[in-house]
Formats: sequence, structure tokens, C-alpha cells
Amino acid sequence: MAYTPATEELIRALQLLPGIGTRSATRMALYLLERDTDSARQLSHSLADALEKVHRCPSCRTLTELPVCPVCESTDRNTKLVCVVANDADRSAIEMSNRFTGRYFVLHGVLSPMDAVGPEQLGVFDLVDKVKAESIEEIMFVLDDQMESEATIYYITEQLKGLNVKCSRAMVAHLKNGSLDQAESRHLVSAIEHKREINIEQK
Amino acid sequence: MAYTPATEELIRALQLLPGIGTRSATRMALYLLERDTDSARQLSHSLADALEKVHRCPSCRTLTELPVCPVCESTDRNTKLVCVVANDADRSAIEMSNRFTGRYFVLHGVLSPMDAVGPEQLGVFDLVDKVKAESIEEIMFVLDDQMESEATIYYITEQLKGLNVKCSRAMVAHLKNGSLDQAESRHLVSAIEHKREINIEQK
Repeated sequence: MAYTPATEELIRALQLLPGIGTRSATRMALYLLERDTDSARQLSHSLADALEKVHRCPSCRTLTELPVCPVCESTDRNTKLVCVVANDADRSAIEMSNRFTGRYFVLHGVLSPMDAVGPEQLGVFDLVDKVKAESIEEIMFVLDDQMESEATIYYITEQLKGLNVKCSRAMVAHLKNGSLDQAESRHLVSAIEHKREINIEQK
Repeated sequence: MAYTPATEELIRALQLLPGIGTRSATRMALYLLERDTDSARQLSHSLADALEKVHRCPSCRTLTELPVCPVCESTDRNTKLVCVVANDADRSAIEMSNRFTGRYFVLHGVLSPMDAVGPEQLGVFDLVDKVKAESIEEIMFVLDDQMESEATIYYITEQLKGLNVKCSRAMVAHLKNGSLDQAESRHLVSAIEHKREINIEQK
């Protein structure tokens, strides 16, 4: 073993971060312990704090620190139109474009049987219940064009059959974690404005 | 603000990690909070645990969890030969090569006035005291060929003048955080075997 047990454990824990391999994790762990223990303390505290405070909005699954997220709480939104997104970053990107007035529903993933992500994990049945209970008129999917996203839309629209809800789709490339530049933001707005209807009854 | 305050704070804290910018930090924060809170908890705990347990060996500044590091504690090492390295990863790389029988001294950096890293931060005066107190016969520098490393060696050897200690240098490229493949390990061993003496009295 090259380093102390607690250092090796920290290197392993840093590899739990997406995109971080052994060498990057080793570099990070040693940097924190050798030169910047203040940052290590700050990161440990921020993680614990976020875990304690941040949870999913019970209505739309957006990450929030409030009992219900501000969009669901607002009386200025179109409650009959719901935008379905794969993650909170995409929701944030759409919200920051200031061109969508409906509400959201965050799946936190797409169907992926290999990773044990099924409709239950994505809250699909909560979405169906919501459509029924709130007489929602339109579901707009804003997802990318990957196979898993296609399968997810297919599965959800199957569950919505017969509920008298219109389904539509805005096709966008990956939304890059919510921090869009001007061109990306225009592309997103354009995609939403040119959404296409999905005829779910005749599929 | 795109995310909740605690999420934004976590994104900022993740950017304290070396090599992580806003987009990577956002992706990491959302991944941890949306999909893998177990990993977030693990990382928070590992950071706190490492900060509590890991400290510098009072004799050689190697990161250790023991009162004194195993190399300084061992009776099998050549106590008259000290290898000076810039960081714990380099020390670990040399130790794993199994070809160095002396002790170490870890600077945790090189001189860098712009970053407020001076001789005090590198423990240079502790090294000088150690040479005097333990009658050390040879200091071998294993540092790269960057200007800051050259300046560091120059500064330290100036402090060692008149102490009757031999100084030598093994020149190696960056040691890649201690996880060396076979070729890198051979290169390191060869560099140490072909170290060159520095004549500090006649500089």
C-alpha cells in the first residue's frame, strides 16, 4: 500500500465522483492532505450540509431545500403543462431560458435496466397519478435522442394512454448541466418552440 | 441562481479540487445529490476521517497516521542518507521501487514566492537542523527539472554549506503520483543509480 489507510480510503471515495479515475483521485487526495486541508474541511462540510438540506420536491422531484419547490409553489405558472426532463441540470437550463411557463417533472435518469433503473426509480407512476389528479393537459418531453431516452418516452406515453393528455417532444442535444452560453440557450428555446406532438393513442 | 443554496455551495466546494472547473463540479454535485447520496456520504466521511487521522511525520514530514512514520521508525534504514522529494506521491514512488534504503524528507511543494511558498513552508530549516542533529552524510534531491525545483535545490544547498554534508541529485520527469508502471519504475531506479554529486562548497 502506497499511502496510509485513511488516505487510501479517501482516494477510493474520490473515485466515486463521476469521471475520476485512480490517478486523478490520488492527486486530489494528496493535494488536499498535503497542501489544502482547509478545502478538504470545506468540501466535507458542504457535502454533509447539502445531504441534510437538499431533497426532492414531493410534487415534481426537483431538488429543493423548501417543503415544495418554488415552481410548484408559484401561482403564476401554467399548471396544465408539465415539462419532463432527465435531470435537475436540464430543468435548470430550461428555467434559466425564461421561456417556459409550465411546471416540471424530473425523472433523475432514464430507463436503464443494466443499472437497475426502472419506472419506479424514475417516478413514472407518480407522474401518471399527477396527470390524473391535476387534470394535466400536456406533457412535453425535453430529452436527448439517445436510445434510452426514446425507450423512456415510449414507456411513459404507454402509461398515459386513455388519460386524454396531449404529449409532445422537444429534441435537444445534451444540455450541459444548466450552464448554457447564449447560443446554447437559443438552441434550447428554439427546440421548445418547435416541439412536435406525439400521437400516443395511435402508436 | 440555478440550484439551491446548499447545492451551489457544494458546487463551489468541489471546485476547490485540483483540475475541477464549474461544469465538472456541477455535474458531480448533481450526480451525488440526484443519484448517489450514499457516495456523497462516503466521501464526506472519508474526508473528515483522513483530516482527523493523517498528519505529517515530525521527523520527515511524510503523511502518516502513526506518531512517527514507518520509515523513520525502522532500524533497517540507512540513517545517514536522506532523499528530499517535493511531495508524498514522489516519496511513495521511490519507496515502491524498493531500491532506496535511506530515509526521506518531504518538502510538500517547491519554492514559489507567487503562491507564498517560502523555505518556512517547505520545512527547509527543519531539514538543516536534522542534518546537524543526526550527522547526516548525504542529501539526495529527487526533483524534476522545472525552474522552481532548481531554485529550491539552490536555496537548500546554500543553507547546507559548511555542514560537511554531501549533496547529490537524481533528475526525473514528473513522478505521476506514485502509481508507476514498470517502465516508469525502471526509469526512476536508473535516475537514482545515476545521481550526480552537487559540489556545494565551490558553487
